[in-house]
Amino acid sequence: MLKSHPCGGLTGKEIGNQVVLCGWVQRKRDHGGVTFIDLRDRSGIVQVVFDPRECGQEVATLAREVGSEWVLKVSGVVHRRPPGTENPRLATGEIEVRAQEATVLNPASPLPFPVRDDVKGVDEILRLKYRYLDLRRPAMRQALELRHRFTKAVRDFMDQQGFWEVETPILWKHTPEGAREFLVPSRLHPGRFFVLPQSPQIAKQLLMVAGVEKYFQIARCLRDEDPRADRQPEFTQIDVEMSFVTADDIYELVEGLLSYALKVAAGRDIPTPFLKMSYQEAMTRYGSDKPDIRFGLLVEDVTDILKESSFRAFSDTVREGGIIRGLFVPGLETLGRKDLAELTELTKRAGAKGLATIPIGDRQQESLVARFLTEKEKEALASRFGSERPGWILLVADQADRVEEAVGLLRLKLARHRKLVPERCSQELAFLWIVDRPLLEWDAREERYVPLHHPFTSPFPEDIPLLEEGVRMLETGRGEKKGSPDHPLRRVRAYAYDIVLNGYEIGGGSIRIHDRSLQELVFRAIELPREEAKRKFGFLLEAFEYGAPPHGGIALGLDRILAVLCDAEQTDPDSGLPYLNIREVIAFPKTSTMADPLTGAPTPVDEKVLKEQHITLVPEVWAKVQQEAGGIGESNE
Amino acid sequence: MLKSHPCGGLTGKEIGNQVVLCGWVQRKRDHGGVTFIDLRDRSGIVQVVFDPRECGQEVATLAREVGSEWVLKVSGVVHRRPPGTENPRLATGEIEVRAQEATVLNPASPLPFPVRDDVKGVDEILRLKYRYLDLRRPAMRQALELRHRFTKAVRDFMDQQGFWEVETPILWKHTPEGAREFLVPSRLHPGRFFVLPQSPQIAKQLLMVAGVEKYFQIARCLRDEDPRADRQPEFTQIDVEMSFVTADDIYELVEGLLSYALKVAAGRDIPTPFLKMSYQEAMTRYGSDKPDIRFGLLVEDVTDILKESSFRAFSDTVREGGIIRGLFVPGLETLGRKDLAELTELTKRAGAKGLATIPIGDRQQESLVARFLTEKEKEALASRFGSERPGWILLVADQADRVEEAVGLLRLKLARHRKLVPERCSQELAFLWIVDRPLLEWDAREERYVPLHHPFTSPFPEDIPLLEEGVRMLETGRGEKKGSPDHPLRRVRAYAYDIVLNGYEIGGGSIRIHDRSLQELVFRAIELPREEAKRKFGFLLEAFEYGAPPHGGIALGLDRILAVLCDAEQTDPDSGLPYLNIREVIAFPKTSTMADPLTGAPTPVDEKVLKEQHITLVPEVWAKVQQEAGGIGESNE
Repeated sequence: MLKSHPCGGLTGKEIGNQVVLCGWVQRKRDHGGVTFIDLRDRSGIVQVVFDPRECGQEVATLAREVGSEWVLKVSGVVHRRPPGTENPRLATGEIEVRAQEATVLNPASPLPFPVRDDVKGVDEILRLKYRYLDLRRPAMRQALELRHRFTKAVRDFMDQQGFWEVETPILWKHTPEGAREFLVPSRLHPGRFFVLPQSPQIAKQLLMVAGVEKYFQIARCLRDEDPRADRQPEFTQIDVEMSFVTADDIYELVEGLLSYALKVAAGRDIPTPFLKMSYQEAMTRYGSDKPDIRFGLLVEDVTDILKESSFRAFSDTVREGGIIRGLFVPGLETLGRKDLAELTELTKRAGAKGLATIPIGDRQQESLVARFLTEKEKEALASRFGSERPGWILLVADQADRVEEAVGLLRLKLARHRKLVPERCSQELAFLWIVDRPLLEWDAREERYVPLHHPFTSPFPEDIPLLEEGVRMLETGRGEKKGSPDHPLRRVRAYAYDIVLNGYEIGGGSIRIHDRSLQELVFRAIELPREEAKRKFGFLLEAFEYGAPPHGGIALGLDRILAVLCDAEQTDPDSGLPYLNIREVIAFPKTSTMADPLTGAPTPVDEKVLKEQHITLVPEVWAKVQQEAGGIGESNE
Repeated sequence: MLKSHPCGGLTGKEIGNQVVLCGWVQRKRDHGGVTFIDLRDRSGIVQVVFDPRECGQEVATLAREVGSEWVLKVSGVVHRRPPGTENPRLATGEIEVRAQEATVLNPASPLPFPVRDDVKGVDEILRLKYRYLDLRRPAMRQALELRHRFTKAVRDFMDQQGFWEVETPILWKHTPEGAREFLVPSRLHPGRFFVLPQSPQIAKQLLMVAGVEKYFQIARCLRDEDPRADRQPEFTQIDVEMSFVTADDIYELVEGLLSYALKVAAGRDIPTPFLKMSYQEAMTRYGSDKPDIRFGLLVEDVTDILKESSFRAFSDTVREGGIIRGLFVPGLETLGRKDLAELTELTKRAGAKGLATIPIGDRQQESLVARFLTEKEKEALASRFGSERPGWILLVADQADRVEEAVGLLRLKLARHRKLVPERCSQELAFLWIVDRPLLEWDAREERYVPLHHPFTSPFPEDIPLLEEGVRMLETGRGEKKGSPDHPLRRVRAYAYDIVLNGYEIGGGSIRIHDRSLQELVFRAIELPREEAKRKFGFLLEAFEYGAPPHGGIALGLDRILAVLCDAEQTDPDSGLPYLNIREVIAFPKTSTMADPLTGAPTPVDEKVLKEQHITLVPEVWAKVQQEAGGIGESNE
């Protein structure tokens, strides 16, 4: 090695020792002919002193001439800093290295932005273009290190639990289901395509059929997503599958895994077991399938109280099959006119008609709605929200799905507004299992039931009779009408579980179907013709015929977990709602519009190269690319 | 868990205990109303006894009716086997489980091939189509487990050495250099493409610029290869890069890594440091840049002896600038007429004109060549090969590159023929570093020097003056003629290293250029115009301007290392030469023609889906696909 010690690792123990350091110039100061350089490497920073009386004029001159981020090699001796010049904020603040020799290993051009955490507001596109500079900042370096330590801990734990990590293919089979897939043309099989895997779901189920029993993989998943601030075209999941298990085994495993990895990688103690909440309760009381339980602000249903209200927006909605739900915010002064307007805006964003804001205790005259309510109704409302203090009741009346979404968003926004959650999202870690969600949902467009995730999730064993009854109704046309909210097929619960951290879904999984007749029943429930099932999933169905064991698993979103730990929560400027910027925990991410400012990818490709893959651009795009290429060529010359 | 114990983990200690097992029926035998089932899970096999007097008639009937690979759950008690019925070949051979209850978790259809290692000759395509059955065989299960243990050990070691594992992108930038890349159309950027990474080479160099200092990754690499038995479109490499290092640091790291991982994962002790051999010596004495040093059979150059031979094939070749080299095979009886014919065939396969076979000690008359040689020449030959015993001298006369390749192949084939290497290639592990290979090679087609790997490899520091001299000659037209074997540019050595195991290249790397002026010198040597360099590698060159540290690294081929350890060496039926079938160590590989018989990938894709990605098939392929789709539809109905 060109260096003998890491810069940030030097302590008082090294005093008197000769050291050779290599690193980057973080900061330089001159004091009466003596140059002080803060030299940085991965481990941290140390102060190097260039005193011409010790290092000679030549080296002293060199030190005076170096610039920010130049790479230096320095030989010198570790000294205790003169009394009064120690820097307690620096791990090496007790000592300094008095240089004897120095070499410039590489100079640096002036930087597009400074390599410092305390300089805010650098444009993210610029940060991504010069990602190699951005990654030199302590915060980003720490994110990379945490990512390494966390995945290492995951692997240690899984290995210790008897899991084998198995690599599954990147070149996979196109299945026209689920998320949009990236295509990869096959040169050797003209006109045919591989796709990049959305997840190793089917591959890991095949590994269970293969008898691997305990599989995991820290797996790259690729989805051709639409632009969204919290999405990336490639992300990483901790992918797990086990044979001969129940959901309880998965809970225990994941709780053990996360508490181990958080302890080892981040020094965090988290209590286990995690809370469990039914999907029903989450939707009803939190307006979300991924509730943030770090704060209360529970949703109450007041449909019964207001169904006959003289405020027509309420009574009409209920008559049309809608519901009324809302939240109570204590303190009339906490929400001003502007806040209420923003909350109303948010409600509309969720597709709901509007927000009824009812003051309790005072300022009744400010509310249009309040004037329409009877005293009895107002008392019943106050009692339902269990509050005798003044405050605001915020109500949304609409069809159930819109109400749920709207009150869920209101809850999130109010929590930020009222500072009910710590500013740093890593400060409190609230894990939660969501269980008992429905197996199927009604797709009004397709006029059929569709699986919430994929058709291989098992129903709850107790709910199989309900599934059978539903399929009977579907196929005979008798009983509940197809699509009705009370149809048995909407009441069948999935033997599935999602895991939530601070209001973000960080994973999900299920016990899978391994029984052919049950699988066929589910296919009938989703009205998937036999031939189509065969074409789409034939190879998996065939595998089930050769001794498939009962199995189940889960996938945890590594990027999201790390984003929470690294406080990569951001606020959407439009909605004021929080989201995770997972780019902060990925070494080389794409922008939210799925491009890479660093490499310039994606790029145009020569026609010759396309032709080799037997493809060509569609004519209108081809014309546009030709035009652009011409334009670019000109502007470069 | 549905089971209390692993089948293969039961020992005498469990005698008397109640156990619940889950597994697959490996074998079933009936003896006078009692059924014996060998139940298998990932851990191994245990014998389960179904005696109707203990388990009742119903369970006994069930046991009689199950078939191969059915999945069972069995409750019972562990008993010592009756004396004389122990099976010492089975880890659980001392005990048996006497069943009380049993459930069929899943039946199995009759298998396409038996799940047994001792059934040979199953067609590989069939094995790949039913990979989930093939993977149930002990040999394949062991390969998966070894792969897990080996990569786990690699990660443990690298972590312990201070390396961070960093994930680099799968969606990368097209660079029209090196291997052919897989293309991925970008839906959001019409007419533009990502590519799948051939390796994380540039990304890891950027991580060095980012100050990561010690990076590794067990990284998936994707190359659009032509069909070859020993290649896969996706493979895995142990990818390493370090800052502030010399080649010696890389040697030490890799030797430490491999000896640790081999010890921990496979119980193998390998001596370090590994031997080092110059590229020159490898080519001259072994006829290969990846010599198998488990055996001798060294190549001798006899150009000087035969340059004026009256055998014109020799003298003419030398006059035309060619060389004559060969091997000595002791024992005239070791090579019969058929063997000599095969060896001649192999020589021609390497592009050489033919093989001169000269008997020493006897049977002179059988050799046409021998009759043309003088006694003096024959004596000189025998003396050059250091043999006084009878045997065959095998000589190839041609241009140097063809001679080297031909004698290299002869050496490999003779080693198998004469059983100089163990049949199981894992038995002896001979590691070797190949160093000092040339930085550039002459590309006669392009009429310019080209880098052997990529243009970022540093020349040997001592050879930089030679590089400068060469570029001067190139640019002034003075001195050595461009392309001549003595041109200084062919004598510049790369600061690079390859690592070889048992004659297979299992990795390679280099110290990279980090100095802009040296990089520009190399670009001038390969006559790469400035503009083109910018277009191809601009983002990396720009990164070098912001304080790039000296750095270097290596990539090790995980699949090949594991293939050697798993004895996945096969013999090419045409050439009789050995190769590694890395499919044996990959869970779900592609065939040598890059297809997946299991999933059917690659598959046709709806035009709608292609259009969404702004591409379409070239007309002739489109027509063919339409035709086939019609054909397939008909044959299925």
